[in-house]
Amino acid sequence: MDEVKVIEIKKSIFEDNDRDADRLRGELKERGVYLLNLMSAPGSGKTTTLIQTINRLKDKIRIAVMEADIDSDVDAVKIKEATGVESVQLHTGGMCHLDAEMTRQGLENLTPALSTREGDRPDLVILENVGNLVCPAEFDTGAVRNAMILSVPEGHDKPLKYPLMFSVCDVVVVNKMDVLPYFDFDLDKCKEYIRMRNPKATVIPICAKTGEGVEQFAEWLLKEVTNWKK
Amino acid sequence: MDEVKVIEIKKSIFEDNDRDADRLRGELKERGVYLLNLMSAPGSGKTTTLIQTINRLKDKIRIAVMEADIDSDVDAVKIKEATGVESVQLHTGGMCHLDAEMTRQGLENLTPALSTREGDRPDLVILENVGNLVCPAEFDTGAVRNAMILSVPEGHDKPLKYPLMFSVCDVVVVNKMDVLPYFDFDLDKCKEYIRMRNPKATVIPICAKTGEGVEQFAEWLLKEVTNWKK
Repeated sequence: MDEVKVIEIKKSIFEDNDRDADRLRGELKERGVYLLNLMSAPGSGKTTTLIQTINRLKDKIRIAVMEADIDSDVDAVKIKEATGVESVQLHTGGMCHLDAEMTRQGLENLTPALSTREGDRPDLVILENVGNLVCPAEFDTGAVRNAMILSVPEGHDKPLKYPLMFSVCDVVVVNKMDVLPYFDFDLDKCKEYIRMRNPKATVIPICAKTGEGVEQFAEWLLKEVTNWKK
Repeated sequence: MDEVKVIEIKKSIFEDNDRDADRLRGELKERGVYLLNLMSAPGSGKTTTLIQTINRLKDKIRIAVMEADIDSDVDAVKIKEATGVESVQLHTGGMCHLDAEMTRQGLENLTPALSTREGDRPDLVILENVGNLVCPAEFDTGAVRNAMILSVPEGHDKPLKYPLMFSVCDVVVVNKMDVLPYFDFDLDKCKEYIRMRNPKATVIPICAKTGEGVEQFAEWLLKEVTNWKK
């Protein structure tokens, strides 16, 4: 391979929001509310995957959704229409990610997710983060787990290019498996690259459009929520 | 449509780097160097599009490339191998975008793009920004023009969800047109949404894999470079 010049441009963007995130996670634990932070690049199919997943779980547990977006509310409306669960839109005002404080603001506006009265609270809150593989990975939202969706058209090399995102996620859902024949996407290589970043990551191939494979993700999530409440 | 609650979470992330950007652009104008800032979501095909474009232009003008990435150098190596033009990798150290100062650092490391000796300078420098539809749109890099690539699998609704990105781009290249039959992507709607953000935007459908349509983008770019040098 040819050698190319590599220039390091270092600049810190990390705010210390870890303490806020831990405090929020502690409160969620006390109240038995499970928060999942779902991340992905734009257009990977987060909303469609959520709809499919929620429709498989909503009769078993109480679910609410927070949709973060720069300034539209199409996703929150779509979720509410397609699943009937409570859905709020978080406008980030241009921000490329959510931090723990912003997540708390969302939870406080949601039907009392942080209420001290058990009956009021959802069992599971899903935060659909801003579509972005960079910044959201750097800020702990206070979620119990991070999950991400990588879609086939994006390519199997993404864990090499966005290492932090893949390191912080416990589950990688590989979406749009229906179009695999039309792309140079190698699922085995993808799994290998993901495990370089996080050896314990669970990889779940799905097609959100048809619902294929979504059951496995829903089962993983239900087990997580159940364990969190113990 | 159902009504959903919308919560505004405002927080300013804008640094005032406009002055730096204008100064850099002024120097580039003096020296007759055209800088293009190319943006997109991860996996939209920026590098493949660049290779196809450069191979159509490199015998007519002198080209150099700056590849911004969080920490890999696969793109810079790929560009150099596939086109032979000078290519440097800019490591952003976790940063989700480039600002004007970082761009200047890149240019200073490139074969003297900012040299006062004309013969040393490239005619065109292409900056491949970090794969991200949010943050790069907020920071003027000092480029003469912003261009972006939207790929068919990402969906035609992206101009609704990432309004600033589409507002700041003069050209939107719609890539992966070969897989149009397999996605619910409406090119006319996409054009309509793009024009809501930027009525003057040029939209160029291409397939970077086969090279189809790339000629039109190359021609646009060559005309731009020629006009900039006048």
